[in-house]
Amino acid sequence: LVLFFKKEHLALPMTRWALKLEYDGGAFVGWQRQAAGVSIQQIFEAAASKLADRPVTSIIAGRTDAGVHAEGQVVHIDLERDIAPDRLASALNFHLKPHRVCVLAAAAVPPDWSARFSAIGRAYRYVISNRRARPALDEGRVWHVPHALNAALMHEAAQSLLGRHDFSSFRAAACQAKTPWRTLDRLDVGRRGDTIEIIAEARSFLHHQVRNMVGTLKLVGDGAVPVAAMAGILEAANRAAAGPTAPADGLFLTAVRYADDPFA
Amino acid sequence: LVLFFKKEHLALPMTRWALKLEYDGGAFVGWQRQAAGVSIQQIFEAAASKLADRPVTSIIAGRTDAGVHAEGQVVHIDLERDIAPDRLASALNFHLKPHRVCVLAAAAVPPDWSARFSAIGRAYRYVISNRRARPALDEGRVWHVPHALNAALMHEAAQSLLGRHDFSSFRAAACQAKTPWRTLDRLDVGRRGDTIEIIAEARSFLHHQVRNMVGTLKLVGDGAVPVAAMAGILEAANRAAAGPTAPADGLFLTAVRYADDPFA
Repeated sequence: LVLFFKKEHLALPMTRWALKLEYDGGAFVGWQRQAAGVSIQQIFEAAASKLADRPVTSIIAGRTDAGVHAEGQVVHIDLERDIAPDRLASALNFHLKPHRVCVLAAAAVPPDWSARFSAIGRAYRYVISNRRARPALDEGRVWHVPHALNAALMHEAAQSLLGRHDFSSFRAAACQAKTPWRTLDRLDVGRRGDTIEIIAEARSFLHHQVRNMVGTLKLVGDGAVPVAAMAGILEAANRAAAGPTAPADGLFLTAVRYADDPFA
Repeated sequence: LVLFFKKEHLALPMTRWALKLEYDGGAFVGWQRQAAGVSIQQIFEAAASKLADRPVTSIIAGRTDAGVHAEGQVVHIDLERDIAPDRLASALNFHLKPHRVCVLAAAAVPPDWSARFSAIGRAYRYVISNRRARPALDEGRVWHVPHALNAALMHEAAQSLLGRHDFSSFRAAACQAKTPWRTLDRLDVGRRGDTIEIIAEARSFLHHQVRNMVGTLKLVGDGAVPVAAMAGILEAANRAAAGPTAPADGLFLTAVRYADDPFA
């Protein structure tokens, strides 16, 4: 018995693609689709769907809120189409125009690989413009704090947050994580001229955790909260014990780490 | 004989103010007022005029073209009003809202001091994003060159432009300078990851000189022009001998130098 069927009827083998994204979050309601407003997910999936000529859904490593930027976000999609990684990135970038979202790199990954669940680390950068004049060039990319902050004290206070803790004091009410326990691997505060940069690294973060830690460290920097109080704020495991949420503008998702870097 | 007259009739002593400006040139037709479009000069003089409650004119250290940015532009104005430097900067910044123009610093200077004529040096930075993906975060702030450029060759070629020369090969047709002779003090090309940065320093530059030098160095970087050809391009003293004008987006006026730094 010989069966004849058209080529189109064959199920083409699917390839899972890891994609590294850069975006300016300023014009978006965040990564995730919302009832109103334009999301990065919607823009990205529309570009992938045009390329695939069918609806494509994506899984993201770290959802970002409205106004939060990314220099190294990672997402995965499945495509039937056989295409070289560089051509896939270029084709997606073509369809992503004119939005401020682009694909920096593409890599084929195993079918069980997940941008979200295979990730073993996330790194964020938070930028404070600490000068009298409001930012003209960096508007929307920094938190403007016009009075002098002591970055050395902020760094010292940050060190008491390192390690495995219940981070409820820095957790958004809307956070959907199963547990408030997280392990913070790095929280460095440094100054270069008028710019204070905070680097945060962990396997994963609670919703608003970085911005809530930054909002509290700012209170240390301006003398409102003593360095020694930070440990108690953490131990309180109560959002009311910590400082306000820092604005989204200054936050950048810089990298997502995997046991095997697909883009290496 | 005693003369009585109202205080308002007294000519108040004028103070000349040096102001350091930062701006994003993206939304403007350039520094100088134009028949159509919004200029930075117009925005700045409107803010100063509101503060002074009379029309104020300004003298700028280095006029910038449409799309060119500034991190350390310098301008001077004369004001009757007695005001502390920080309060003057804050008041101007208030009136400059919501434009992406701000005053970083203010300093009282002698009445014969000129932002333009007292300047003894100008420094520019030009940024190339040298990667396949178009810039999402840095759109409007870089020249996107997607194919690989050899920055080391560009740097080598740049060195043959140093010193005192007739820079006619790199001079815009519209340039109003009396002479094409300029002394180029520094032209460094360096790479950090995907970013190529070019630093140019001179007492003054011809119109489009930096962008024309960058456009020519780019041809060296991509192999279209050999390093050894650069000296001949300069000697030709003919605009047609050099490369095209690099886009405005990547250019930043970073600093203006004076014998006595008024902001020190």
